[in-house]
Amino acid sequence: MDFCDRVNDKSAVVGVIGLGYVGIPLAIAIAHAGLRVLGFDIDAARVEQMNSGVSPIKHVASSTIANLRDCGFEATQDFSRASECDALIICVPTPLNEYREPDLSFVVSTMDNIAPYIRKGQLISLESTTWPGTSKEVLLPYLKATGLTVGEELFLVYSPEREDPGNKKFDTRSIPKVVGGHTPACLSAGVALYGAFVDHVVPVSSTDAAEMVKLLENIHRAINIGLVNETKILADRMGLDIFEIIDAAKTKPFGFTAYYPGPGIGGHCIPIDPFYLTWKARQFGLHTRFIELAGEINASMPQYVVEKTIKALNDAGKSLKGAKILALGIAYKRDVDDMRESPSVFVMERLRSWGADVSYSDPNVPVFPKMREHHFDLASINLTPEAIAAFDAVLLLTDHSSFDYEMIKRNARILVDTRGKFRGDAGVVRA
Amino acid sequence: MDFCDRVNDKSAVVGVIGLGYVGIPLAIAIAHAGLRVLGFDIDAARVEQMNSGVSPIKHVASSTIANLRDCGFEATQDFSRASECDALIICVPTPLNEYREPDLSFVVSTMDNIAPYIRKGQLISLESTTWPGTSKEVLLPYLKATGLTVGEELFLVYSPEREDPGNKKFDTRSIPKVVGGHTPACLSAGVALYGAFVDHVVPVSSTDAAEMVKLLENIHRAINIGLVNETKILADRMGLDIFEIIDAAKTKPFGFTAYYPGPGIGGHCIPIDPFYLTWKARQFGLHTRFIELAGEINASMPQYVVEKTIKALNDAGKSLKGAKILALGIAYKRDVDDMRESPSVFVMERLRSWGADVSYSDPNVPVFPKMREHHFDLASINLTPEAIAAFDAVLLLTDHSSFDYEMIKRNARILVDTRGKFRGDAGVVRA
Repeated sequence: MDFCDRVNDKSAVVGVIGLGYVGIPLAIAIAHAGLRVLGFDIDAARVEQMNSGVSPIKHVASSTIANLRDCGFEATQDFSRASECDALIICVPTPLNEYREPDLSFVVSTMDNIAPYIRKGQLISLESTTWPGTSKEVLLPYLKATGLTVGEELFLVYSPEREDPGNKKFDTRSIPKVVGGHTPACLSAGVALYGAFVDHVVPVSSTDAAEMVKLLENIHRAINIGLVNETKILADRMGLDIFEIIDAAKTKPFGFTAYYPGPGIGGHCIPIDPFYLTWKARQFGLHTRFIELAGEINASMPQYVVEKTIKALNDAGKSLKGAKILALGIAYKRDVDDMRESPSVFVMERLRSWGADVSYSDPNVPVFPKMREHHFDLASINLTPEAIAAFDAVLLLTDHSSFDYEMIKRNARILVDTRGKFRGDAGVVRA
Repeated sequence: MDFCDRVNDKSAVVGVIGLGYVGIPLAIAIAHAGLRVLGFDIDAARVEQMNSGVSPIKHVASSTIANLRDCGFEATQDFSRASECDALIICVPTPLNEYREPDLSFVVSTMDNIAPYIRKGQLISLESTTWPGTSKEVLLPYLKATGLTVGEELFLVYSPEREDPGNKKFDTRSIPKVVGGHTPACLSAGVALYGAFVDHVVPVSSTDAAEMVKLLENIHRAINIGLVNETKILADRMGLDIFEIIDAAKTKPFGFTAYYPGPGIGGHCIPIDPFYLTWKARQFGLHTRFIELAGEINASMPQYVVEKTIKALNDAGKSLKGAKILALGIAYKRDVDDMRESPSVFVMERLRSWGADVSYSDPNVPVFPKMREHHFDLASINLTPEAIAAFDAVLLLTDHSSFDYEMIKRNARILVDTRGKFRGDAGVVRA
């Protein structure tokens, strides 16, 4: 029985490699469509959590994870079990190294782990965001090394993840899925696989094209956020509130899409993905000037927020050194607990380097987590009127819904707003 | 009776100054709402056309103009009649001078023309796109010079035009209208006026804010088009078709809006308006780097198209010098007859400067019009198979709906496509 038949009669087993923000919702969607899912992760604790029905992600309920087991889901660290799978979907991180270059080490080590177990009839799909050419240049050699014929005995596809944690309107099933295949047969197999658990599959002409699609999506966002961040500074200098301007502009029913400024950009996509294209472009002798500009402007936002704070303190006759500063919201965006690349942390580090006494409050992050590059020995403080009034300045960095904004405004001595929550309020510092 | 009462009982007379792409649809919307409109223009021919029921604009029917007269509309060159008007709405061009700086001369001469006739109770509204501060810095002094009190005896508002010629989904009435007033009373008067003939009025806090709103809308578009133009070049170098990438990316139901590349940017807004902010920003010691970058990249597109043509001819052993080249579509966008800032013209000029023998075909532009900075003594050629086959290369620059694309493809010896009309066709040169 061939691959597509096994998908169609739901006898196919799908291996999801990397049980994180992408892999977990994906495993859920596949399992709910009636296919058996085997979850792979190198992290023993993560495997244990998944197998005992504990959700590692705030926006996925533990009951959903527990329910997965009833659908036949199993998590494992044992990559030899890749041979049990008809399809292997790779959802591992693709970060940047310290030189802002692509770090494909997780993809490569995944391929190293599964390589001995690749067998005839399997489909390998990469979902991690990466530069155009990755599937062909990095994955294909592993498939070829098996001696099997890609496009006949093995199938290679690239299908970019489009997860949006916390999005209440769209989920893995309802977000259209772009798929590119190494050959037409690969594409057919990929369309069959994803069509089994996604409402709308969008085939494109190659894995390169599919890789580029995802980058363009995130580059578009990085550039649009960069533009409003740059415009924010000018608007502020002119005495205008950029949030008012954007909200009025978005009443235009065509030709304009609202993006909002903030203290920087965070999350695993927008600050990172665009530079995958920048790196690849160099091979073609080209520069990605919009990406570089957006990167520079977005990365300068934490410093802008700190400068606004320094100025506000200065106007009150105080230095930042020794000042007690409260950072409100340290997750990278509203109502999530995800700290990856959070601009709040960059703001906090700068404040600390200037000698400020920094605290934070975030209902979603009770204790400052272990991070590879940041260390704060802090726990979220409880937001009472007295607590707030005890700070020299309060910085709204992530506008969680659960904050009591009225109470915060009433009690903050200096309130620096990076999210436009206190519009038109003359007593609030726009940053 | 005060201004708002006269608007409400429809006894107010509205003067529309500048009978062009903005003023004419505006006059129609006001007249259709039951207010009498007096149209002002310095161009005798334009006034005569309007009064004799001839439309000067392709997408406005002459019957609509003829019908205007029945609604009490009259066009005049006599600016002393401004005193008859309760409201004066200024819709004159705001171009750039040759140093890419704002040229407010039309606004200033309009104010000079009406200044002697400004009277108590009038509202003055500027709709022309301009830098934040224009109403306050340029118009207000004229109002103050009357000795009347602005905000009590005279009202000053800024309300940016959002005309989109050829848009079949939205018109002047259904496109929300942003209004900023010099004082709260000015804003109220402006909201009353525009509320009389626009479905949804969006008040903002100041004329400066309203001016900035319009700029942000057009800057957003200029930057997004710049980004896809830059990405187009890289995609092409990688062997990818940017149109396929964009169409796949736009299947993402959030966080992405499709903009398409082309041979440059045209029309009276996108290539010009952003630089109004660039100029004003200098006064605040700031640079608008996104605008500069988009401007540079978008302005380089005609040259890119010409280089692609040179390469294609070269591959056929020909030079551009002496080659017969056909430009398809010279209006600045699909299905309009508007030639303002059309990138096609920039392409044609470059081709000619390299010694090519340039012709064009555009169903909407039968004869190459008189333009301030461009001169071609040409008429649109008739598109027959023989005519097309007689050219060394055919360049699709503006993708009018009425072109017979199949026939063009069958007969063109070299076909250069800047609009993605011939996707996936290996014989077509992507540019």
